[in-house]
Order: sequence, then structure tokens, then C-alpha cells
Amino acid sequence: MRLVGEAELEDIAVGAAILGTGGGGDPYIGKLLAQEAVRRYGPVQMVTVDEVPDDAFVVPSAMMGAPTVMIEKLPRGTEVINAFKALGGYMGREPTHTTSIEAGGLNSTTPFVVAAQLGIPLVDADGMGRAFPEIQMIVATMHGVSATPMTLADEKGNSAVIDTIDNSWTERLARTLTVDFGATSMIALYPMTGKQVKAGAFIAGTIGLAEELGRLVRETRAAHGDPVGAVVERLNARRLFGGKVVDVARRTEAGWAKAEVRIEGSGEDAGSSLVLQIQNEHLVAIRNGEIVCSVPDLIVVMDAENGGPITTEELRYGFRVVVIGAPCAPDWRTEEGLALVGPRYFGYDIDFVPVEERFPR
Amino acid sequence: MRLVGEAELEDIAVGAAILGTGGGGDPYIGKLLAQEAVRRYGPVQMVTVDEVPDDAFVVPSAMMGAPTVMIEKLPRGTEVINAFKALGGYMGREPTHTTSIEAGGLNSTTPFVVAAQLGIPLVDADGMGRAFPEIQMIVATMHGVSATPMTLADEKGNSAVIDTIDNSWTERLARTLTVDFGATSMIALYPMTGKQVKAGAFIAGTIGLAEELGRLVRETRAAHGDPVGAVVERLNARRLFGGKVVDVARRTEAGWAKAEVRIEGSGEDAGSSLVLQIQNEHLVAIRNGEIVCSVPDLIVVMDAENGGPITTEELRYGFRVVVIGAPCAPDWRTEEGLALVGPRYFGYDIDFVPVEERFPR
Repeated sequence: MRLVGEAELEDIAVGAAILGTGGGGDPYIGKLLAQEAVRRYGPVQMVTVDEVPDDAFVVPSAMMGAPTVMIEKLPRGTEVINAFKALGGYMGREPTHTTSIEAGGLNSTTPFVVAAQLGIPLVDADGMGRAFPEIQMIVATMHGVSATPMTLADEKGNSAVIDTIDNSWTERLARTLTVDFGATSMIALYPMTGKQVKAGAFIAGTIGLAEELGRLVRETRAAHGDPVGAVVERLNARRLFGGKVVDVARRTEAGWAKAEVRIEGSGEDAGSSLVLQIQNEHLVAIRNGEIVCSVPDLIVVMDAENGGPITTEELRYGFRVVVIGAPCAPDWRTEEGLALVGPRYFGYDIDFVPVEERFPR
Repeated sequence: MRLVGEAELEDIAVGAAILGTGGGGDPYIGKLLAQEAVRRYGPVQMVTVDEVPDDAFVVPSAMMGAPTVMIEKLPRGTEVINAFKALGGYMGREPTHTTSIEAGGLNSTTPFVVAAQLGIPLVDADGMGRAFPEIQMIVATMHGVSATPMTLADEKGNSAVIDTIDNSWTERLARTLTVDFGATSMIALYPMTGKQVKAGAFIAGTIGLAEELGRLVRETRAAHGDPVGAVVERLNARRLFGGKVVDVARRTEAGWAKAEVRIEGSGEDAGSSLVLQIQNEHLVAIRNGEIVCSVPDLIVVMDAENGGPITTEELRYGFRVVVIGAPCAPDWRTEEGLALVGPRYFGYDIDFVPVEERFPR
């Protein structure tokens, strides 16, 4: 167990935005909400997966919806508390721990608001090892863990509890409710025992890894080093492309932020172009018409100058960026994992090729 | 208190289909489900509103969705029990009574399934005195009764509990969930105390009235009398039009069955035409381009031969029909009532005129 306060949250937000592969919402907003909670209620106890008792009742807390809307509709901390408490009430048992559903701008830090305000420990873990756009896209699904009972709340005072026959049905119902709520909702879902978490239903150590990545960027930057190179090294990633953003086409569709981004190469990539296709997160990177990296591997866009991660909503014409590809959690590379989050699920008729195989060192 | 068995259900189904103004689903299916339940579990105790104890916990049970879909997706009795029990579980109190949300083909008899199977009494009442397409369109809304907590269940095993800030939000969330469920769901909503029911939140005696109307049609028919005339007399209604159905245009839209029906006049109406516009129920009757009857008054289509009510889904080319207009419950003619269910709510830019005023005797 260790305490996480304002300073650690700075690093966690940056690192989680790297692992978030462009999605999971605005890391700045997530950080502010979490830091405010920590200032008011004191630092959060973060425990490792190994430290969680078998009979613990672990309930992840998160936000759902199109992050583009979230930027305009700033969530209040209380809303996520409402969804979290409602789930405990519905199940007739107070959650003993919370954790992160995904690594990403908002959802890596959202559970810190819950943990701080309710004075419960947060488990250093997440459900994806990255961010993904749909609810069933979580390692826990492969471990037979149900996403429901799940609670959803909006900022107006509406709420819902759903109970579904599988996690794809959860996604379906929660998505339309979220659209009704105005494209954003606060959620609590995947209630688990400590035993399930320890058996691998969630990925251990993701928040600690995010913190490490954030610190690496900060320290390398301060030492006038190469933060992108440091992150590539730490994640066993590959540098895919460097250049300037020349086009960003966005649309919000059925509660998702969809976009296509075009980058014109510079330096060693001069004369080439890279297209990123996005559904909340980066799905594929297409270099000169050929897919060079795809889900479930992580496609990360970083500021060419300072190595800071750039979310899909921040991307603008003129940004000078470096795009890297990093290996996903091993669970995702199994047949079952690829059925859930592989390129074919997202409509790309290609086999998944690990980024390290495509670009051997 | 009196017992309602198979024979009474025959009459109730016919009478409720009259009050249902074309909507509320197939009376034949509703009757079959209720009769099967009564055969298996014994007759249902029907109590008057006055007989309900103040501290009773009354929970209406119903089906929601496009009745056109319901015809293909025959509901099982167990589904409505699931929604009903889930609401009791959520609220931590077993319902003591059930009742009908509306008078209509399915929803006047659906609660008999619940009452029979759970062995609880059914209150002789309904929330509308007719059928209406949306959840908030219920006298209880004007009495400040919340539609939530509300539970929804589908036939696959999915369910939801919603809690909303007002009854229009309930309609919105329940409608999209119902569309997700495949356009039909089983619901329990508007949990009330006996005291609220007695204070007029529900309309007393609707099921008894339905039974009386059904018996009237049956007996007048047997005596070779005029069943349509008998119903017109009993309801202080007006005969609006007689003729042959020449066109029926249907579409299922956002979980509603919408339609427009054209009737060519015969006999005293020869040379004229009547158009019915429908959203689950008949909304307006337009004679030669002029609205002659509108919501909230009841527009009822009856078989010209035998006086049986015809639902909007049964209407076919060639049917010889009589259309009558009947006064709605007085609550609906108040300013508040008309704001909820008046013609303007449904997009018709006209003032409501009571059918008795339009056609004085």
C-alpha cells in the first residue's frame, strides 16, 4: 500500500494518456477532479492486486460516452459517487475497493475521486491495459466476469441499473442510455471479488506503470533528453511515424467520437503520409495506404517537441507529432482476445500482426 | 372484492379494447395469457379502489413497445413477473397489489397474470381511462406520482431499473431500452401507496367498466340488437363515421407503431372519407380534411357487423367499420391534462374540443 497525492496524479495522468492511445477523455480534466478530491479528502491508499483480500468487493468506477462532449459538459465529482453508491445499494453490499476500468485520460483518475471521497483503497490495476471504446472490451470478459449489475447516472439526477445476459448486451443498453443522458454518463460496473481480481480478471499494475511513464516523460524532458525515445524503450514500442497533422475530420456518432487524422511526414518520413482512424481511441495507423499498426496494440500520438501524449480531441492542424506503436497486454493477443478487440471486430478485414513482428529490432 | 375468472376475462378483453382506442396491443393475446394464468393459479381477487388499505403497496404491471412487434414476439407470462418482482426487490418491499397502467388490449389483462401467479389482489382501476402511447401520459403524473423506480425486462433475460427526475425522462429512457430489447419489454412502474391510489392518482373502476362494455357487446349481439349503438349509449359517445377501410399505411418508428388509415364512407356517410392518424392509439379522426375528434377523447373503431372493437394492428383493407368518439376521463380535459395528452402535444395545432360539444345531441 502507498499513498497517492497531487504530485503522483500529475504523472499518472500523463502516463495514462500515453496508455490511453488517444482515448479515455481529457487527462487534464480527470487530473483536476482527482486532485481536488485528494486536496479535500486526503491522499488515496493505492494497493497492489496482491494486497487485495479474497473477499474484497471491488467496483470499478468510470465515465462513459463521447469525450468530445465531456469537454463541454464538465462532469462533477458527485455524479460518479452517485453511480458507485447506487451499485452498492443495489447489490446490498458496500464496495470495499475501487479501481480503473481503463487506462486513459479521464478513467485512470476518475476512481481516485471515488476512493478519496469514500475513504476506500484503490487497486493498482485496470481492465484493459489501455483504453477501448466498448464496455465488453475488457480482460474480465474473458474471465467470465459479468459487467452487470451496472449503474449509470447523469448530471441531472437520472440513473439506471442494468442487468444483462452478456457484456455485449451491457454495452448496447448502456450506450443508448448514455446517449439519452446527453452523451456522457458516470458508471459503476464489473463488480468483482478480490479473488477474481487476483486471478487476472483485471491487469495488475497499470496505474503504477502510468505513473512511471509520466515520471519518465517529465524527468527526461527536464534533462533535455528524448522523452519519446524513453517511452518507446520502456514499452518495448516502435516509432511508426513523424510529421505534421494536416487534416482532422471528426463526427460524434451514436455516442462515440469518430475521427480520421492525416499526418504528413517530415525528416526520415518526408514524402509519406500516415492516417489514423479513430473510435474514441486510435484503431489503426495506415502508412501510404497500408496498415502498419492496429488494435489491440497501442497507437500513441506524442508531441514531437516535449513528448507529451496528445488525445484524439486535442489533435489539431499543424501539430508536430511522433506516432508510436506499443505491444498490448498479452491477453489481447489470444484468439479470444482478438475476437473481442481485434481489427476484424472494428471492421478491418486484416489479421492482427504484433507491432514487434512487423518492425523487428 | 370479487373473483375474476376465465369468463369475466372474455368480456374485459373486449371492453378494454374498446377503451383502448385501437392501442394497447392484441386483446386476444392478452386474454389468452391471463386466462392461462387463471386456469393454472385460480381466479384473481379484484378489489375496488375504496377497498385498498392506505398503506398498500400498489405496483402496476404492463408491456411496453410497438404492438405490431408483439404480435410476432409473443410474450411469455414469466417476463412480466420478472419485472414486477425486480421492482419489489429494488424497493425492498413486496408489492401488495397490482393494477392496470392503461385500458387496452394487452395491458388491461397483463396484470391478471401477475395477480394470479403471485396470489395478490388486483385493483379495479387504470392510469388513463383509455390507452396512450407514452409513459408520462397518466393521471398519476398530474398527482405528482413518479413513474420511477421502474423496471424493464426482455424475454432474453436482460433487465433494467431506472430512476428519473420526471416522468418524461422515464419515457425517454424506457423507450430506448425497449427499442434495444427488440421493441417490446415487460415493465413495472408507478409504485404507489394505497392512499395515493384512493386520492385519484389512478382512475377507479376502469376494469369493471371494460367488463360491462364487453358484456354489453356480447349480449346485444346475441339478442340481434345494435352493439355499436349500445356502446355509444353507455359511454355517452358519438357515432362519427361508417364505411370501408380503403388504405392502411404503417411504419414502426422509434418503438412506436405509427399508421394512417383511410375509410371511405357508405350509407349516410357515402361520398365522404375519414382518415385516422395513429401512434399506437388513434390520435385524430379527420373527416373530409377537418379534424372531428382528437386526443384525449377516445376514437374507437368497431366492426360494423358485430360491434367488436378493432385494434390498429388488425385494421385491413376491406373492413367495414363504424368509428365512434367518446368523452375521455375528466382529468384529461384540464389545462394540465391537455398539456400532457392534448392534440398539440402530438403535433396538431388545434384546440381540443370535447366530442359532445362538437356533436351536441
